[in-house]
Amino acid sequence: MITGILNGLRVIEVSAFVAAPLGGMTLAQLGADVIRIDPIGGNIDYRRWPLAPCGSSLYWSSLNRGKRSIALALDKPKGQEIARALITQPGEDNGILLTNLPASGWMSHQQLSKHRRDLIMLHLTGNYDGSGAVDYTVNCASGFPIATGVNSDPINHVLPAWDIAAGLYLSTGLLAAERARRRDGQGRKLTLALSDVMLATVGNLGYLADVQVNGTVRPPLGNDLYGALGRDFATKDGRHVMIVAISNRQWHAIGNATGLTDKFAMIGPMLDVNLNSEGGRFEARGAIFALLENWCAKRTLAEIRTAFDDNGVLWGPYQDFGQLFSEDNRCSEKNPMFGWIYQPGAGNILAPGSPLNVVGSERLPLQPAPILGQDTERVLADVLGISASEIGKLYDAGTVAGPENQKN
Amino acid sequence: MITGILNGLRVIEVSAFVAAPLGGMTLAQLGADVIRIDPIGGNIDYRRWPLAPCGSSLYWSSLNRGKRSIALALDKPKGQEIARALITQPGEDNGILLTNLPASGWMSHQQLSKHRRDLIMLHLTGNYDGSGAVDYTVNCASGFPIATGVNSDPINHVLPAWDIAAGLYLSTGLLAAERARRRDGQGRKLTLALSDVMLATVGNLGYLADVQVNGTVRPPLGNDLYGALGRDFATKDGRHVMIVAISNRQWHAIGNATGLTDKFAMIGPMLDVNLNSEGGRFEARGAIFALLENWCAKRTLAEIRTAFDDNGVLWGPYQDFGQLFSEDNRCSEKNPMFGWIYQPGAGNILAPGSPLNVVGSERLPLQPAPILGQDTERVLADVLGISASEIGKLYDAGTVAGPENQKN
Repeated sequence: MITGILNGLRVIEVSAFVAAPLGGMTLAQLGADVIRIDPIGGNIDYRRWPLAPCGSSLYWSSLNRGKRSIALALDKPKGQEIARALITQPGEDNGILLTNLPASGWMSHQQLSKHRRDLIMLHLTGNYDGSGAVDYTVNCASGFPIATGVNSDPINHVLPAWDIAAGLYLSTGLLAAERARRRDGQGRKLTLALSDVMLATVGNLGYLADVQVNGTVRPPLGNDLYGALGRDFATKDGRHVMIVAISNRQWHAIGNATGLTDKFAMIGPMLDVNLNSEGGRFEARGAIFALLENWCAKRTLAEIRTAFDDNGVLWGPYQDFGQLFSEDNRCSEKNPMFGWIYQPGAGNILAPGSPLNVVGSERLPLQPAPILGQDTERVLADVLGISASEIGKLYDAGTVAGPENQKN
Repeated sequence: MITGILNGLRVIEVSAFVAAPLGGMTLAQLGADVIRIDPIGGNIDYRRWPLAPCGSSLYWSSLNRGKRSIALALDKPKGQEIARALITQPGEDNGILLTNLPASGWMSHQQLSKHRRDLIMLHLTGNYDGSGAVDYTVNCASGFPIATGVNSDPINHVLPAWDIAAGLYLSTGLLAAERARRRDGQGRKLTLALSDVMLATVGNLGYLADVQVNGTVRPPLGNDLYGALGRDFATKDGRHVMIVAISNRQWHAIGNATGLTDKFAMIGPMLDVNLNSEGGRFEARGAIFALLENWCAKRTLAEIRTAFDDNGVLWGPYQDFGQLFSEDNRCSEKNPMFGWIYQPGAGNILAPGSPLNVVGSERLPLQPAPILGQDTERVLADVLGISASEIGKLYDAGTVAGPENQKN
């Protein structure tokens, strides 16, 4: 049996939406046993778009692959008791809760840690003071939408980047706390605010220092890179390519691939800049772009691809999600990260596993997301050791639900 | 002395740019001893924009806070030997290398693991086949720039989101491999391709399943949310706000705050949709937005803020980087994540620590980034136990450099 590097670790997840589910899935795809607890009928994210024709959420199933699912009546004391037993289960690999729900009452750290003193709890909130915020309301405040595009009208990026980063901070923090517990025996509650993820990132990229030291706010530059050479260009056949040069080698490759080296050489003396520096190329980008615009407009994407790949240019084609899937070899079964799964509700689909690859080990087999409540019975029996007759009573009382009891 | 939860862990980083440095800084800000090795004079990222007036890179110093810096002649055998000694240092908390450089020759896993069999190595590459890619050339292929804005002209987001995510996958993977090593004594080489981070994310968000199951490609929707209610609105005083409703409670809050509940109630029957569902509100968004547009245009940001905050609306103001710093209380010393540091080259600045907060523990004191080579002498002496006279010889031979020998 192939096991992942986190084999043995058990994480209980009580979550919804993107960040916390991604944190859990990241660990599951490295081999951890991640058990997601949902209320019977599913949490608020269970029907989010995009949907398959049968109504099954492709969003939900894509963010919960490789987990086990148990459905509990979390509004009843007995349902809460089962959840608590899972969360505070003894054993050095257990006793870890990952959540982005309010975590009050029975699910507060204070209450839960009465049942397991060394509990590790990761709690994602909106703001550091506990108030609410979501990716969209954090993003608008970040400065990036105003720095995007060609003028100061805000443009939201479509990627929920703060949720993605938060999910990966959660997986990092969880493993850090688990390491600490094995060294000192102490449980911990870690909180992560989505807006702190944004604020830390804006700071980590130097923008807050720039404001404080230089008093400057980076202006919107369209698709131009800031401080280096790069932009998008339209091709003859209605596509677009991104061309970039960070290093001098990459810069010379563009000249070689396009045959424009001699013309580029005229720009330095003309504008009095050193084109063998990132800053110089950024300052002279207008003239450089004019030449490249013209060159790309006369060639198809296929012609550009050949010229650029043959010369080691740092570039990429723009693709929509459909083109990404149909044209990009990296998004195919040729890429060992991908594999075929049968996803209930969606059918056979090509899906990614963990981007973290353990060299020399076989990749963990890809797992689909569970149907809601799919593992209720096995988790109750195998993890909590509840007898079959007792499980039957829990079903009858509506305390737990298996997949057949869900309104799918 | 306050220690972080990763106290004791030592990571050697040989890196440049965003992702690998962020991975290392994430661990350093949790208490790990992260030693960044650079060539004498600095790596290719040492002068990246934005710069302080003195020429010091605010980009570099923002991505390397809390690390130690040692400058070595990595092009000479003796410099490589010192780097190797640091990377393969004995001890259960040592023997971990984080890099995004080519990692060939002496720095290959094969060569290094001869000196420490259970070495852990995290290696970030561009593509899974080892070929080159950077955030910009990965992003254009992702589908997001074409899904951004109001038509299919690509719009790049300014946030280097793939680099950020990659950095946090690296910190997660490093801790996972370290956990595994303590259990089975095995070293491992983990690779992570930047384009795999993108591909996994596109898949994790359901876009690849949507293409395969429905044959549809999510169209650009401007700043509208997809599948739920949300968009930006201009205010009377020239600002913009983002308004969102995911849950029914959030939807009703908008009606309460604006006094538009009765008008909203007319939309359901008019368009024959159920406004008490995410999908229904998404379908009816045109009519809802028309009312909100009008309402916001008659009010200032301050008036909107009061009305929305009093009623629990899920919203946020758009801010540029300057407004984020000057207007947003979350980006101030009121937020315990922030603190003042003296950053050489930049002066006293407010900077973020780790967004991961260990509840009940004092926060680790914020640390500035080192000056290049700042810790050369101490690392050689304390970590490798090299004598003062031997260190003197290394300086004289140009094998190592301290801060005074750098061209700052």
